[in-house]
Parts: sequence; structure tokens; C-alpha cells
Amino acid sequence: MDEPRLAGVIAPALTPFGAHYAPDVDRFARHCQGLLRAGCSGLAVFGTTGEGNSLSLAEKLELLEALVERGVPPELLMPGTGCCALSDSLELTRRAQALGCGGVLMLPPFYYKGVSEDGLYRAYAEVIERVGSERLHLYLYHIPALSQVPIPFGLIERLLERFPGELAGIKDSSGDWSHTQALLERFADRRFDVFVGSEEFLLENLRAGGKGCITATANIQARALDELFRGWRGTGAEPLQGRITRIRRIIERRPAIPALKAVLAHCAGDAQWRTLRPPLVELSPEQEKELLADLEAAGFALPSPSANRPHEGTGSARAYRPR
Amino acid sequence: MDEPRLAGVIAPALTPFGAHYAPDVDRFARHCQGLLRAGCSGLAVFGTTGEGNSLSLAEKLELLEALVERGVPPELLMPGTGCCALSDSLELTRRAQALGCGGVLMLPPFYYKGVSEDGLYRAYAEVIERVGSERLHLYLYHIPALSQVPIPFGLIERLLERFPGELAGIKDSSGDWSHTQALLERFADRRFDVFVGSEEFLLENLRAGGKGCITATANIQARALDELFRGWRGTGAEPLQGRITRIRRIIERRPAIPALKAVLAHCAGDAQWRTLRPPLVELSPEQEKELLADLEAAGFALPSPSANRPHEGTGSARAYRPR
Repeated sequence: MDEPRLAGVIAPALTPFGAHYAPDVDRFARHCQGLLRAGCSGLAVFGTTGEGNSLSLAEKLELLEALVERGVPPELLMPGTGCCALSDSLELTRRAQALGCGGVLMLPPFYYKGVSEDGLYRAYAEVIERVGSERLHLYLYHIPALSQVPIPFGLIERLLERFPGELAGIKDSSGDWSHTQALLERFADRRFDVFVGSEEFLLENLRAGGKGCITATANIQARALDELFRGWRGTGAEPLQGRITRIRRIIERRPAIPALKAVLAHCAGDAQWRTLRPPLVELSPEQEKELLADLEAAGFALPSPSANRPHEGTGSARAYRPR
Repeated sequence: MDEPRLAGVIAPALTPFGAHYAPDVDRFARHCQGLLRAGCSGLAVFGTTGEGNSLSLAEKLELLEALVERGVPPELLMPGTGCCALSDSLELTRRAQALGCGGVLMLPPFYYKGVSEDGLYRAYAEVIERVGSERLHLYLYHIPALSQVPIPFGLIERLLERFPGELAGIKDSSGDWSHTQALLERFADRRFDVFVGSEEFLLENLRAGGKGCITATANIQARALDELFRGWRGTGAEPLQGRITRIRRIIERRPAIPALKAVLAHCAGDAQWRTLRPPLVELSPEQEKELLADLEAAGFALPSPSANRPHEGTGSARAYRPR
């Protein structure tokens, strides 16, 4: 019950693909280790940004085990384990728990729409009960724009009532600060940790008692995010939040996952990072060029395209580059 | 290229669950065999009605293999093989093809919304190319209310151009007859088979050159649907279509899958059929009572609740009962 819990900047790590769109274990592990070195407090692998739902159960298990084998501390991992099929969610959550993962981030089953609160309760309760570990830290994943299945407050209430130790918190990707505020107020005294799904609200969330953010741009601006997390009480927090939000705005004007992979490919001089699994597709060369120009104009330090070796960048919003 | 193709009433068979929501292979096989005896021309297992997305890959493979082992002719099977993960769609389609299935019904990857036509093309093309069999009959599954990812006409055009042998048709669950008509007209000379996802449009579809229907109520009114399919040119077709549509209306006023399972449980005297995998939940006893009363009032022959043994029913819209 008093296990330490994840807090801070949790990176929803991008997943690299190779030939035939196969996940690339080595690049993935290197990227994850790099994100931790860049200051991330944890790794929410297999999230929306990581194309988690485009991976099979076997692929996710292989990648997760590979991270732990290669020395990523399992307590820093918060894999996405919520699938459409109860059996998949159960197996993945069980395995994550057995590996000692710090948490799991669980989408509701998302194929059927307009499902009842009872049905969602059963979906979560069945997994928690059958995993059967008081050390489980389950985070709900509220992302209605993609899942089309919101997490109602009544569901949180029921799950907290029944599983006060296991239900650890929520990732709120509603994109609506008033929703996050309502969550923070309603569950303020319940040890229910709220992470925002957009770095735009990181400072507000920390000020209001939230625990951090789980956000796509952690893949490219981990250092700046971590600096804000550690220094949110300081005078530099507001301008830093402003710089962070500007980067987000640039990314979100494009298809975000292809945009982030393009930045990573460019910064690492590694074209393979541009590959996405269908149904996602990479940016066109023109789109990528405009994106990089926009980032540079915003003061985001990019290595010169001709530079092959790692480039440190400058400024607090400098890019993280995989090694 | 000249392989016979599925046509008529294809039943999206319901999937029975036992303890801990495990799929019940024996009941499933008996139900499927019963549907074929009741006149169905094929079985679209693992569809929306069959809670296909609530099953893991391993569970679907096991159920599919069990059907074939127990003598269901594979050429009558059209399993749902479209998953969020390309790797799952590929493995399931490949296995279905190896077993000799008459077709596969493929949802687009449905987690990401607003994806490009290019991305959808890649998702389907990658599976077709890697299965690599000219005997594959792939049916697209257009069900925008649930998948939230429609199948655009431009995508069909591109797939037909590149894979004229493999792309066999579509299940149109738009619920919009003008959409089905547009499909029939646009691809009239392309050997592209159109099935409606609602029995409400069965007669219209057959008159306009469509091939049949793949519809939830085939689980309980297979005989009537088959009678309409075989006799659609006759004078009895209109009134029969009217009776069939009345049954659909009664089902669709409720959560349809729980309602169908309740009818099956009642008719078979087998309470286990009431179980649904979360996030779906069964009807309340009151809801079930009202449903059965509505069906009876519409002339749908239900066995008396006290009758334990199979009941033949009367009338053309009589219920199919699993044995």
C-alpha cells in the first residue's frame, strides 16, 4: 500500500519498426534508455504515441521483456495493457506485474461504443482480481477522442471503493483542463494520482496537486519537461512552460506520431525511425521540411542535417537524441 | 479467380462464454452447426455480434480450428480477421486461408481515427500481399458507427485495381441504403460482392444485385432469412421481409448482442448463453421478459419457458434453437 509511485515526466516512448513493419527491439531499448538519461521519470510504453494498439500481444511481451533484460528498471515502466480483448488485457497486465513494472496504463475495451458503466467496471475489476496482486498500480487511460469510450467519474468511484490499493490514478488525455481540475478536486483525498496527457497543462497540474504528465513530446523534449517538473515552484517555470507549449503546438498541427518520428529520424540521422505501422503513414519530405523549419524558428535546437554524430543542442528545450 | 463465392445468409455467430468469460468451444461448435442446418449459407464468426474483438488471437485461432475439426466445412466460414494490430490481422488471415476458409471479413485497424486512405490501403495491401494466395477472398467491413473508420470508395477502387482476385466484396453496415446502392452501382461490373449488414435491406439488396446479408438476427431467425434469400423473386417476399424487419426492430431497440443471447438462452433452456464478455453486459430479467413478450406479440415462436427439450416452433419466422 505504501509502495513508491511513479511521478514526473513519463514518456510514451515511440516504437521503431524495421522491414515488414516488425518492431525493432534494439532501437526501442536504446530509445527508452536514452529517454531515462534525458530525465524522464518513467516510460509509458505501448501507449497511443507508441502505436501500442498496432502491436500484437506477443510483440508487446517481447519488447517489454527485452527492456527489462537490457537493464531498464522495471519499476520505471508503465506499459499500456488495455486491449479490446479481456484475455489480452489480463495476460499483459499479469506479465507486467510479474516483471515488477511500476504501473500499467489501461485503456477501456474500445471496440464497442456507448457501453455501460457496469460493463467497464467488470472489464477493469476482472483484470485486477485475476492479477490478484496488491502491488499492482493501475492507471486508467481517459482518451475519449481516440478510444471513444470515456472513463466516467462514477466508474473511478466504484473502482476506488473496491480496489483502493490497486487503482493508482489516471492519465487524462481529454485535452480539457476543466476535466482534469474536476478529477483533482473530486478525488483529492483518495491517493488517486492524476497525470495530464498534454504537457500544455503540466505546470497547472503540478500546482493543483497532480503528479506529472505522460505526453508525446517527451520523446523529443524530455529535458525541458523534466526541468519544469523539478522547478515548477521557481520563477522560470512560466516561461519554460511557454516554450514547451510552443513545441507542442508545432507538433499537434501535424499528425503527431509521424511528426515526432520525423524529428527523431532527423536528430539521430537514422531514417528507419520514419517508419510507422499502417494505418499511420510518415510525413512527406515537404511536410518534414516545414516541421523542422517551424521547430527551428521556435528555438528548438536541431542538429544540422549533414551532421552524422550526436549533437548536444543548446537551450532548455533542446532535443533528446537516441544514441 | 473462378472459385465459388459465398452468397446468401451469412450468420455472424454469437460466441458463448463459460466461467471467467472463457469461450466455450463445444457450445460454439454446436451453435454454428445448428445455424448451417437452419439454412445459413455461411458463418461470419468473430464479427461484431460474435464479440470477435473481445477475443484474443489465440482464442480465435482455437475456435476456428475447432470448427473445422468438428466438421464445419471451411469454405462456409468467413471469420473476422481485421484487428488493430497488423501482425494479428496477418496471422489470423493467413491461418484462415490455410484452413480453406471461404472468405475473411476485415475491419480496418480501428484505434486511430481520421487516418488517411493511404494508411488504410497499406494496412489491407500488406496483409493481402503477405498472405500471398490468389484463393484469398477478402471482404471489407464498413461499420462506421463502431469502428469509426469508414471504408472510402477510393480505397475500394485502389484495392480492386491492385488485387482484383483477392478483394471479393464488402459488408456494408452503414445502415444507410443509399450508401449500399452507391456501392452496388459504382462497382457493378467489378465482381465485387455486396452484403448488407442489416436484414432490413435484404430484399432490396438482392433486387439490386447484392449477394445477401450478414446480420445479427440470423442467430435467431435463420430460417426466415434463408427463405427470403431463396424466394426473393416470389410474391411472398414482401410480407416475409416485413416480418423479418419487425423482428429486427424489436432486437435493435435493446442492446442487440445481449438481446440475441437472451433469446438463445431462453429458446435453448441454457442459461450460460446469457453471458457476455465485458464491456458488454446481459439484459436484466425485466428487460429479457419485455423482449420475449415483444417477440411473442410479433408472432415469433418461442418455446414455453418450461419446455426443456428442443421446440420446433411454427411459422416462417420461427426461432432457431441450438441442440
